[in-house]
Amino acid sequence: MSGTPDRAPGRPPLISVEDARGHILDALSPTPAELVALAEAWNRVTAAPVVARLTQPPTDVSAMDGYALRAADGTLGADLAVIGAAPAGHPFAGAVGPGQAVRLFTGSVVPAGADAILLQEDATRSGERVQVNEAVTAGRHIRRAGQDFARGDTVVPAGRRLTARDIGLAAAANHPWLTVHRAPRIGILATGDEIAMPGEPIPAGGIVSSNSHALAALVRACGGAPTILPIAQDTTEAVAAAADAVGGLDMLVTTGGASVGDHDLVIAALQTRGLEVTFWQIAMRPGKPLLFGRLGAVPVLGLPGNPVSAMVCATLFLMPALARLSGLPAAPPPVSTALLGTAVKANDHRADHLRATIHADAAGRSVATPFPVQDSAMLRRLAHADALILRAPHAPALDAGAEVPVIRLDSFGL
Amino acid sequence: MSGTPDRAPGRPPLISVEDARGHILDALSPTPAELVALAEAWNRVTAAPVVARLTQPPTDVSAMDGYALRAADGTLGADLAVIGAAPAGHPFAGAVGPGQAVRLFTGSVVPAGADAILLQEDATRSGERVQVNEAVTAGRHIRRAGQDFARGDTVVPAGRRLTARDIGLAAAANHPWLTVHRAPRIGILATGDEIAMPGEPIPAGGIVSSNSHALAALVRACGGAPTILPIAQDTTEAVAAAADAVGGLDMLVTTGGASVGDHDLVIAALQTRGLEVTFWQIAMRPGKPLLFGRLGAVPVLGLPGNPVSAMVCATLFLMPALARLSGLPAAPPPVSTALLGTAVKANDHRADHLRATIHADAAGRSVATPFPVQDSAMLRRLAHADALILRAPHAPALDAGAEVPVIRLDSFGL
Repeated sequence: MSGTPDRAPGRPPLISVEDARGHILDALSPTPAELVALAEAWNRVTAAPVVARLTQPPTDVSAMDGYALRAADGTLGADLAVIGAAPAGHPFAGAVGPGQAVRLFTGSVVPAGADAILLQEDATRSGERVQVNEAVTAGRHIRRAGQDFARGDTVVPAGRRLTARDIGLAAAANHPWLTVHRAPRIGILATGDEIAMPGEPIPAGGIVSSNSHALAALVRACGGAPTILPIAQDTTEAVAAAADAVGGLDMLVTTGGASVGDHDLVIAALQTRGLEVTFWQIAMRPGKPLLFGRLGAVPVLGLPGNPVSAMVCATLFLMPALARLSGLPAAPPPVSTALLGTAVKANDHRADHLRATIHADAAGRSVATPFPVQDSAMLRRLAHADALILRAPHAPALDAGAEVPVIRLDSFGL
Repeated sequence: MSGTPDRAPGRPPLISVEDARGHILDALSPTPAELVALAEAWNRVTAAPVVARLTQPPTDVSAMDGYALRAADGTLGADLAVIGAAPAGHPFAGAVGPGQAVRLFTGSVVPAGADAILLQEDATRSGERVQVNEAVTAGRHIRRAGQDFARGDTVVPAGRRLTARDIGLAAAANHPWLTVHRAPRIGILATGDEIAMPGEPIPAGGIVSSNSHALAALVRACGGAPTILPIAQDTTEAVAAAADAVGGLDMLVTTGGASVGDHDLVIAALQTRGLEVTFWQIAMRPGKPLLFGRLGAVPVLGLPGNPVSAMVCATLFLMPALARLSGLPAAPPPVSTALLGTAVKANDHRADHLRATIHADAAGRSVATPFPVQDSAMLRRLAHADALILRAPHAPALDAGAEVPVIRLDSFGL
């Protein structure tokens, strides 16, 4: 490598986080659909609506343990003949006539002829007779056919990340397979002469690569499938060669190249393989330099080499990109609110992302306290943070107790 | 099967959710440790502290692009000889003498002799000379050796669920492998003559099994490894036979058996295999009946057969159980606060768990609005809920806008 610090001419001016994210998300499309077994579909995003293949409940069923009877017979003190039982899964084959009752359980099919339920606790059973101790109401404690859903109903829309409850609902709607977006395949390329993989020999003055691993875990946390590419040395040839590995990827994420001016080497090298760069300077802290482009059909996101900046940028840009690739709508990362644990000073023109711990106050509200030193070199402190406090450009000074927007890193496994 | 509705004698009285959870968690121990590759460790719980194997940064490094020099030389207008460059990963071999400077980049090792950094933007380079346009301060913009962590420091404690940032930190601390608790293996046994697996023939009056799938997904969401056992018909023999499949499991979860009185059949059947039952009635809604016991060494959690009750009970009991088995401390599910979207009435003696949607108000605060009908038969409505509003026994009526504790189902992939 032959580093020159000089800035190349014609670089775009600073752009905002929102504009940068907008550009990235506009350039991405969801992955194609695939069919997966129900058991594999948790946390995937539906590529087609899940339409009920049956009606639930399929017929009128009892909501309680008790007896099915004709409402007209269910008067206080009445005494009825128990003509059979209908445990769940074993419907009573006959019909309930006047003066008759059939033993039922929760979920049992209400037999023909019956239109009321006598609760078990309101009945006295004696041999083949049952006495009514509380008058019944027609229709009460009966779950009507289709009360939950009817055949043909969309029970899960397309574009939804499947929860455990959705999986249960899809099962109940009789779907052994679900159509979901393929998990996005994300290649991760760390560059730099100074980095080594954990457990491998470390070059003089070098450090162990952490970005690849942290980003691979972030990709997993966001439902993607990471591929860690071999570290590329700081030469045009090595970085360009890595570009040949992008086939089949849905996105290439690079980190570093900072030793020769942020991203200069990565850009120059990937340009030899046809990289089209969209922009690369953002009004934010930490992590100003960012590259976004396209290598053939594959989007390329270039994160800073600094591990703290890389993770903050990954939270702001890669997490939403993964959501979009996974089939979700284009959207910023989920933001919640917290109360400031300490005062913060007015912000300058760059959006700031204060690493903060979160604790619950006596009322159970989330209180976010920024670390007093926001050093972007401190990976350990980043790992101890629970949230990023979002400080917009030119945000005014705030006192402790003020409400601030936060991204809860701990909520997302980041 | 031959159902009798009569309650067996000697059943324990209602106990509280908290007491039940306490009993369950007291009976559980974390799974044993295993060694996994760093890349596989995300979301697992550390079984041993991660101790730094190196010091980071390993030596004093520059925090900025610029020039290393002696502070005494860095006066306004000084003109220094540039004797070399030290890109990251390529430390300068010599020492910086009086009147000399070495070109540095972010992360570059500060060469011997230098104790100050002249920022690039404060320097004018001209051939092999550099002019100082802003006086330097000794030590400023230098990251000291060990500023992030020192060899021997615990960078991640035992008993922590590993985030993406932790993975990066462990990598930086030079760990290719991590010692974590084995993912808990959870067997899931659905019982009932009336249930079929999705896509299979459905018995008359029967329904498609949803509990097994929803619970398997919940187990995954909580970092466990689910095994769905074949559905057991409602006979003592079939359920007892399933007990023979528990070898190697960390917990057996059963659902249903409700067709013959809640859990009666499951208990009777598993007792033929030595089940010891601890309790099984809880002052809560939905989902009163709950079984907890032990089959040999394997804990057994018996959830209600009703799918909504099963998922609510799984959230309250199985999620914390999985966390404990995974190596986390015994604790209730994470609770946050929200503002009520509508008034709620006073509660009776049973803890209630109102299914609710969450939206953000204009100030970004979470507003939880319970569904007007809380029917435990409606799986579709459960799937559309974002949270459970927790209503303690005898909780007073509350107006809209009151703060209430909630469990955010959407946060956990449930």
